[in-house]
Amino acid sequence: MRMIVIGGVAAGSKAAARARRVNPQIDIVLYQDEAEVSYSACGQPYYLSGVVSCRDSLIVRHPANFAKEGINVQVHHRVTKIDAAARTLTVHDITNDRVFEDRFDSLVIATGARSLRPSIPGIGYEGVVTLRSLTELDGFKETLQRLRTKHAVVVGSGYIGLELLESLSRLGLTVTLLGRNPQVFSRLDPDMSQTVHEYLVDQNVNVMAGDGIAELKGKNERVTEVETSSGITLQADLVVLALGAQPNAELAGQAGIALGNTGAIAVDERMQTNIPGIYAAGDCAESRHRLTEQAVWQPLGDIANLHGRVAGENAAGGDARFPGVFGTAIFKTFELNVGMTGLTETAARAAGFDVISSVMFARDKARYYPGSQELKVKLVANANDGRLLGAQVVGTGAADKSVDIVATALLGGLSCFDLENADLAYAPPFSPVLSPIIVAAGVLCKQVKQS
Amino acid sequence: MRMIVIGGVAAGSKAAARARRVNPQIDIVLYQDEAEVSYSACGQPYYLSGVVSCRDSLIVRHPANFAKEGINVQVHHRVTKIDAAARTLTVHDITNDRVFEDRFDSLVIATGARSLRPSIPGIGYEGVVTLRSLTELDGFKETLQRLRTKHAVVVGSGYIGLELLESLSRLGLTVTLLGRNPQVFSRLDPDMSQTVHEYLVDQNVNVMAGDGIAELKGKNERVTEVETSSGITLQADLVVLALGAQPNAELAGQAGIALGNTGAIAVDERMQTNIPGIYAAGDCAESRHRLTEQAVWQPLGDIANLHGRVAGENAAGGDARFPGVFGTAIFKTFELNVGMTGLTETAARAAGFDVISSVMFARDKARYYPGSQELKVKLVANANDGRLLGAQVVGTGAADKSVDIVATALLGGLSCFDLENADLAYAPPFSPVLSPIIVAAGVLCKQVKQS
Repeated sequence: MRMIVIGGVAAGSKAAARARRVNPQIDIVLYQDEAEVSYSACGQPYYLSGVVSCRDSLIVRHPANFAKEGINVQVHHRVTKIDAAARTLTVHDITNDRVFEDRFDSLVIATGARSLRPSIPGIGYEGVVTLRSLTELDGFKETLQRLRTKHAVVVGSGYIGLELLESLSRLGLTVTLLGRNPQVFSRLDPDMSQTVHEYLVDQNVNVMAGDGIAELKGKNERVTEVETSSGITLQADLVVLALGAQPNAELAGQAGIALGNTGAIAVDERMQTNIPGIYAAGDCAESRHRLTEQAVWQPLGDIANLHGRVAGENAAGGDARFPGVFGTAIFKTFELNVGMTGLTETAARAAGFDVISSVMFARDKARYYPGSQELKVKLVANANDGRLLGAQVVGTGAADKSVDIVATALLGGLSCFDLENADLAYAPPFSPVLSPIIVAAGVLCKQVKQS
Repeated sequence: MRMIVIGGVAAGSKAAARARRVNPQIDIVLYQDEAEVSYSACGQPYYLSGVVSCRDSLIVRHPANFAKEGINVQVHHRVTKIDAAARTLTVHDITNDRVFEDRFDSLVIATGARSLRPSIPGIGYEGVVTLRSLTELDGFKETLQRLRTKHAVVVGSGYIGLELLESLSRLGLTVTLLGRNPQVFSRLDPDMSQTVHEYLVDQNVNVMAGDGIAELKGKNERVTEVETSSGITLQADLVVLALGAQPNAELAGQAGIALGNTGAIAVDERMQTNIPGIYAAGDCAESRHRLTEQAVWQPLGDIANLHGRVAGENAAGGDARFPGVFGTAIFKTFELNVGMTGLTETAARAAGFDVISSVMFARDKARYYPGSQELKVKLVANANDGRLLGAQVVGTGAADKSVDIVATALLGGLSCFDLENADLAYAPPFSPVLSPIIVAAGVLCKQVKQS
């Protein structure tokens, strides 16, 4: 039996490794167009800033490590066509500029996603960068060093944009954040994203929310200015396009593999596409949202790993299931931590839930314990029975812990009544005597009781 | 309606405050034998060490703050008798050495617990201290300053003993840990407590596990030596008795209020004792363990607050329930964090469960992210279906987060199959790409599948 994996940043390399563990007998081949597989794309902002000093430390496993396990990793190989009926692939060996065919019994498509690039004048200037792949990282780093940039405009206020504000600021650049959405990080409810907005202003970020990029101006093919949609001209020798990504689903689409409404590859609980034996995993594939039951596209590193584990097991003859996602995510910008799980109030209402919510401020440790930090916690629940629907946590404190408590509560279908008496770990260095989540749940309980 | 609360460190003051919020009409009186109510006993080791510099910061609310809410707090008042049938109390006003009677419609007993003191020669010497109440804290601090102690023997390897090793070591004292149990912190499984033991040795603690205190020797009424059960003599000018505590349940017992097998006051889900209208809360009361269904005694600050909230609401005419505990606890000794929730493997087997377990090491952040620390995680689950029974987490990393994830999973009755695909918050500053709990759950899943 021959299993082929296309792409190996996170989901693909995980799928190959899992398949090998499940089934020591089969042939496993992984084709990757870049020079490396199995690396942490999420760590890239920290390598740019110098917080992580060694590029190699972002690489989880080199191709040689895979070879030792009997996984044949071919880098600089791009798969250009899938013939789903014939069970064959067309592969372009980039180094030797050679095209060949390969055949598979099972296939895992893990082609990832790519940065969005708007079609605007000047997009090709030097000093205009994106960040997603290791190739883009190398280009970004090289640009910073060669151009000795001083004034950055980050376009887009999603995770990567906000993380890069910190990275570039640490490097001494002035930073402007340009986002078409009036809300900074619009995945949050407005009352929560407002806190992020104000924090960034305090960090000397020039926050221009509600304004987009119209045109790039340059000199000698180097970017010098950004002209915004509202007609403002910003001086810039570095423009970071952090406008989001789109799934690399064309290869699958052309092979007759069904894509979902999100544009990513549609899969079932076994991560199988509409064609038996062909699986998809990671940033090119959809997930089921466990609260709305809708297919969603959640291109995040941890989900890619979970996808890969399931797809790899099944492609090797096993039977694993991926139950779906809750939309959990977290990032850090400067010293502010921003996390969420489940549905925001806005999203829950849009999905038809009758919701209650509570917003409160708390410390993350006993208030007298040195280093305790603030958190703003918003909980969203079902108005009828108090069943939790989501949490958003913003602050310099341990937002990750509060998010993970609620993410686990969502997994258990728990209500605010369950959480208000949760038996969580308390000692002054770790928590206030009652966890922020217990207190916030208690506030919600009163709203359910009243209704 | 007149509600009386006896004792006000944590549960009592919480009960009074909750009662006032639930019912603005009733009279609320709180009698407390110490000078202060509403303080953080758990913060005391950090005041001793100087990590927390201000004693007052341990106090949550002064009696005057309660007065503003119409709660009549009487400090230096000891209740010496409860007449359950007549609904009266005998109260000793210590300051004025006056005894009087008071009457109640509802009563909350929150008399707390007291440090165990063994009956051994020399127990009365200067330099022999305990720690639980603010009164004991003041005595401890005064002893340190007046005697300028240099060599401490901490007797007992529970939470307080291990926390105080750090406090005393920070103050420059040499520290010996003397514990009758061969296991340091015997609430953990042996494989986990061994890690704590080794860590303490690395911190230059003279760990003498499996040896007890036999006798104290002194000079001019000051302690100078500890003689151990095995006949070893230790030089000591400070002896900390951290042998645990016992519930202050005598007052209730003498009034005909039923005590449980643990020696603490037996209560129902409403925190009511066997006598209608008389409630008990905090360190003097039992809780129901939600996994074993047994009554347990869990004298911890967060549980006291949860108890107090429920008892106070009910004593004021409300109807709240306390669903019980999972035995969650955490403490820090030096830079080692030690947490647990649910049942250990030992406890689960003793309770009749057929168990599987996994032990693994993980980092608490992406391994390349600065400051990532190690955790040793042990999960225990039901062998038949993988339902989680407990977790123990030891390490310099964020043990509290892993414990709280599992504590919430226990609340939801989740299995390792649920957790292996949990959607937890990942970004390099917060977690490895797959949380230690997800990885540990995955290991358990294989054991369930095999059985």
